[in-house]
Amino acid sequence: MSKVGKVYLVGAGPGDPDLLTIRAVQRISIGDVIVYDRLIQQGVLALAKSSSEKIYMGKPPGHHCRQDEIHALLVEKARQGKTVIRLKGGDPFLFGRGGEEAEYLAEHGVPFEVVPGVSACLSAPLSANIAVTHREASSSVAIVTGHSAFGNGDRIDWHALARIDTLVFLMCVHNIETIAKNLTAAGRAPATPAALIQMAYWDGQHVVTGTLENIAARARTQEVEPPATLVVGEVVNLRERLQQLVAESERKSKQEEEVCV
Amino acid sequence: MSKVGKVYLVGAGPGDPDLLTIRAVQRISIGDVIVYDRLIQQGVLALAKSSSEKIYMGKPPGHHCRQDEIHALLVEKARQGKTVIRLKGGDPFLFGRGGEEAEYLAEHGVPFEVVPGVSACLSAPLSANIAVTHREASSSVAIVTGHSAFGNGDRIDWHALARIDTLVFLMCVHNIETIAKNLTAAGRAPATPAALIQMAYWDGQHVVTGTLENIAARARTQEVEPPATLVVGEVVNLRERLQQLVAESERKSKQEEEVCV
Repeated sequence: MSKVGKVYLVGAGPGDPDLLTIRAVQRISIGDVIVYDRLIQQGVLALAKSSSEKIYMGKPPGHHCRQDEIHALLVEKARQGKTVIRLKGGDPFLFGRGGEEAEYLAEHGVPFEVVPGVSACLSAPLSANIAVTHREASSSVAIVTGHSAFGNGDRIDWHALARIDTLVFLMCVHNIETIAKNLTAAGRAPATPAALIQMAYWDGQHVVTGTLENIAARARTQEVEPPATLVVGEVVNLRERLQQLVAESERKSKQEEEVCV
Repeated sequence: MSKVGKVYLVGAGPGDPDLLTIRAVQRISIGDVIVYDRLIQQGVLALAKSSSEKIYMGKPPGHHCRQDEIHALLVEKARQGKTVIRLKGGDPFLFGRGGEEAEYLAEHGVPFEVVPGVSACLSAPLSANIAVTHREASSSVAIVTGHSAFGNGDRIDWHALARIDTLVFLMCVHNIETIAKNLTAAGRAPATPAALIQMAYWDGQHVVTGTLENIAARARTQEVEPPATLVVGEVVNLRERLQQLVAESERKSKQEEEVCV
């Protein structure tokens, strides 16, 4: 009987291979099998050894869930003695079903290790110059999947959420209208600033800002597509302020350069 | 007039240099000046070039805030034409006052870049086998600083927090009793599972588990020291389950080995 291989549940961060951790890069490089999701960039896969088997197990939005197949695949490959890398966008233990995968592996006697990653819940806002906390504007952050707004939505306590300073919704493009409606119905002011960050750290990065009242309409007009992260709260104003300051300082330094020439 | 240098606000992750991002390592390596906090490990500082000036600006717990000094220092060094690396534990835009630093730099015309990091809010629970979300047990996570429980505590809406599935309190050792009391007073069940993770990804890592009712007493008995992260919610049970499964599977594979010998 060959020795059972180890499975590494690896957080691949928000997209850019540059935002992988050193440990993630090392783990990817030793994988015999790479099982990856929809949101993994080619540059990340390129870090695997060329002999590795790369298996795409992404779930296209709206399609049926392949979680059982993923579980079976991880165990099957490990039992063949292979070192398996399960690559997940962001962090494997935040809405990545990584907890369930770890549980399944443990139940089946497969050794595993979980490698944390940079999650979009902080890095998508950061990429748009939004700090999710701020000494004056926010001392609490709640993170929710946009998916939860439908289907599992009954589980979301909108009245509680509405009272948290900053809210971050991951994977929310299709539910942004419902999210905004539910939050305002639960008492959050319609004028609360909101920002939608599309494809943070990807080539197609694009940011739409507005308020709870108009962010859904603006997202529609600007044809925002998944993946996108919604931030709701006063902290969104920091972005506007920083953008202005940075633009001003760039204008000044350009003027200075012109004087020097 | 020498050109103004750039300031990089870099997230150094939870501690282990292995959990830095590739981008963070690259930025650290080009710094002329490294301004660092209390929770930065020697192994991280060792990645800076040997000629770099390393300036410790940590705030010992309870001591007066040096934030103004940090702001002034960053601008002063940048105006000397230096490339400045501002190293912050975890992610620079989550409770790191990175937002304020970015604002100050922008106000003073200093160019800056923010590099996201692996935050303890997810990685500390992960290091203890706790996934903060779980399809059945949790679809929302709130993140709060333990510091907020005192002083700025008036700002915390405990009734709202008590209704979020998973709660993560960073930097909470001294306020754990208050946190537990406030949450139960706000309606969270005293039997809610809780885990306290001390020094995640450092040599002294230690995990204490219990419930909202007894976690403060257990932390005292086991002399938990900062930094530590508190997780409250049903997801803590996943850890217990995983630990059992892993122990079982290790026992089995040991038995098999003995049979083979």
